[in-house]
Amino acid sequence: MSRFFSEKYRELEAYVPGEQPKGQTYIKLNTNESPFPPGEWVAEAVRSETEKLRLYSDPESTALREALAEKLSLRPEQLIMTNGSDEALNYAFMAFCDDAHPAAFPDITYGFYPVFAKINRVPYTEIPLKEDWSVDPDDYRKVRGPVFVANPNAPTGLQLPLSGMEKLLQANPDRMVVADEAYVDFGGDSALRLLDRYDNLLVVRTFSKSRSLAGLRLGFAAGNPEVIRDLKTMQYSTNPYNVDRLAQAAGIACLSRDEYNLQNVREIIRIREGTKERLRGMGFEVTDSRANFVFVRHPAFPSSELRDRLREKGILIRWFNRDRIRDWNRISIGTEKDMDALLRAISAMLQTENEERKP
Amino acid sequence: MSRFFSEKYRELEAYVPGEQPKGQTYIKLNTNESPFPPGEWVAEAVRSETEKLRLYSDPESTALREALAEKLSLRPEQLIMTNGSDEALNYAFMAFCDDAHPAAFPDITYGFYPVFAKINRVPYTEIPLKEDWSVDPDDYRKVRGPVFVANPNAPTGLQLPLSGMEKLLQANPDRMVVADEAYVDFGGDSALRLLDRYDNLLVVRTFSKSRSLAGLRLGFAAGNPEVIRDLKTMQYSTNPYNVDRLAQAAGIACLSRDEYNLQNVREIIRIREGTKERLRGMGFEVTDSRANFVFVRHPAFPSSELRDRLREKGILIRWFNRDRIRDWNRISIGTEKDMDALLRAISAMLQTENEERKP
Repeated sequence: MSRFFSEKYRELEAYVPGEQPKGQTYIKLNTNESPFPPGEWVAEAVRSETEKLRLYSDPESTALREALAEKLSLRPEQLIMTNGSDEALNYAFMAFCDDAHPAAFPDITYGFYPVFAKINRVPYTEIPLKEDWSVDPDDYRKVRGPVFVANPNAPTGLQLPLSGMEKLLQANPDRMVVADEAYVDFGGDSALRLLDRYDNLLVVRTFSKSRSLAGLRLGFAAGNPEVIRDLKTMQYSTNPYNVDRLAQAAGIACLSRDEYNLQNVREIIRIREGTKERLRGMGFEVTDSRANFVFVRHPAFPSSELRDRLREKGILIRWFNRDRIRDWNRISIGTEKDMDALLRAISAMLQTENEERKP
Repeated sequence: MSRFFSEKYRELEAYVPGEQPKGQTYIKLNTNESPFPPGEWVAEAVRSETEKLRLYSDPESTALREALAEKLSLRPEQLIMTNGSDEALNYAFMAFCDDAHPAAFPDITYGFYPVFAKINRVPYTEIPLKEDWSVDPDDYRKVRGPVFVANPNAPTGLQLPLSGMEKLLQANPDRMVVADEAYVDFGGDSALRLLDRYDNLLVVRTFSKSRSLAGLRLGFAAGNPEVIRDLKTMQYSTNPYNVDRLAQAAGIACLSRDEYNLQNVREIIRIREGTKERLRGMGFEVTDSRANFVFVRHPAFPSSELRDRLREKGILIRWFNRDRIRDWNRISIGTEKDMDALLRAISAMLQTENEERKP
C-alpha cells in the first residue's frame, strides 16, 4: 500500500474472486459461469447500439427496467439496474447499515459480505449456520440491522424455503432483509412474490448466471419504490451512469428471447442432477444444491489436493480455505462434455489412490 | 426515502447529471458528449466479444492496460481501468481521504466532488478560485489532505498550466494531488509527464469525450504503482469486475485506430474556436476554454432564460444554479451544423430582444 492510503482501511482485506485464467485453456468450473453463450441476437443488439456510444447511457435504464418489470410481473419503480449484482449489494450495505444497524449474515455464505461491511465501515455479525448448514430464522430474531441471506446459499447450494424467508421478514419488520438470489433460477423459490407484502424485503438478482452474461456486468435489485429510491441515491452519489448502453441493449435483447435462457437453465439442472448422482456413486458426500454448482466432499481425498490435481489436468474447481468448509469443493456445472471430463479425471485419481493403498 | 435509510445519509444530496432526454430529438449540447460516433471497428470488436460474455471479464483489464500503457508511454502497473472516470474519482476519495485528511478542491469545479466527499463521509474544503477563475496553487499550501483539481476545469474550461500543477505537487509532497483530466485532450497540458517525478500525483482520464465512448463507461487513473494498488483494493472491495468484457474490447479497438479520435479532437477544437469568435461577435463574454465546451455570458440576456428558450427550439445547453456562475451557460461543442443551428437561434433571440426594447 502507498504512504497515502487512509488508516481506516489499513486492515482491509479485499475480496478474492475465483481465478480468471489467461492464455491456457481450462475446463473452467470454478466461478459458476454458464457453459452456454448468449444468443446471437444479443450480439446484434450490442453491435447496433455501438454507434450511439458517443452519448451517455440512460441513468434510469428505463427501457430495460420496463422489459424486466413485465417479465417479473413488477412495476418499473420497484427495480434498479446495477453494474453486476455486487454493486446492488454494496448499495444496500451503504444505504441501510450503520453503527446502530449492523449487518447480519451466516458464517458460511458469499465471501463478499464481510468485505462490503468493512469497506463501508459498518459492524457485522456472522451467525453460524446449523450443523446441516441450514439457516434457522430464529437465530436472527435479535439482530439490530439488515439481514443478508444468499438464497440458494453459496457455496453450499442449499435453499432456505420461502416459509423461512417469511419468518425472517416477520421477525424483522423494521429491518431490511436482503435476499441475494444470484442462483435462484436453477431451482430455488424466489422471494419476489413476497414483495407486495413486505416493505422490508430487497431481492438482488443477476444476469450473470442463468442468462449467460457474467462478462457484461448486469444485475438488479427489486424492492418497494422507497427502498429502491434509497439505492438510486447511492447510485447517483457514486456512479450515475453505472449501467452502460451496451449492457442495457444486451439486457433487453436477452429478455426478448428468454425462452433460450430457460432452456439452458433446464439443461444445467439436468446435468447437475446427473453429476450429483455420479459423484455420490464415487463415494462423495453431495449437498442438495439448487444452484448451478455442486458442493462435495470425499472421505478419502483431501479437497485442496483434489483442486490441485484437477488443475494439473486442465480442470479448474474451487476450494475455500475457511473454517467448516475446508474439506469441501465447489464445482460449477458445465456442459455434459465438461462434466464427463471431470468425472473421468476424478475416477482415475480415486482408482490410483486405491491401488497405492493396497498392501 | 424509506424508513430503513441510514441516518448518516439523511442530508445527502446526490449528484444531478445533465438531462438525458428520451424520445424527442434535441441538438444535445448539455453534457459534453462527442458529436462523432466511435468507428465501425469498435462495433465489430464488441460484436465478436459477445459470444464470450458467459465468462467473467478480466478484473485486471490486462490487455487494455497494456495497449493504453503503450499509447501513453507508461507501464501497465501505473494504470487502473474503471467503469467511467467517476468511479476512479470515488476510489480516490475512498482510499486517500479521512477525518485527518480532508479533501480540498475549488469552489467552482466538477459538481460531483462534494458528493463524493459526503457519500464517503469525509470532510472537505472548497477553496475559492481567484476573481478570474484561476487556481492559485498558494491557496493550497495549508490543506491537510488530497487536492482535487479538474484540469481543464469544468465548467469554466480554464487550464491550470503545468507549472501550476507542479507547484501544487511540490507544496503537498505528503498529500495526493488528483488531476482530473477528463477534458485534457482538447488542448490542455497533461500532468502524465510528471508521473515519474511525483509519487503523490494521480491523473484521472476518460474515454467518454475525446474517444466518443460516453455511453460505454470507460475511465482510468494513472499513478505510481503503490497508489494504483490502493485503488485496486477499493475496486476489489466493491466491484472486482467493474469493467465489463465489451468495454475492454471496445477500448482496445478504439486505441488501435486512435488517429480517428485525434482527427475528431482537432475538428472539435476548430469548431470551438470558431464558436467562441462568433459568440464574442454577438456580445457574449467567453472564457478561454481548452475543453469540448464553451462557457459564456451575455450582458443583456439572462442565462437561465437562454437555456429555457433554446430548449423550446430543440437545443439543450447547461445552466448551473450556483453562486458565482449563475449568470453563465455551458455549451458543449457539437458538429459545425449543430453550432450553426445554435448560433442562428441565439442570434434570432437577441434580435427580437433588441426590437422589443426599441421605443
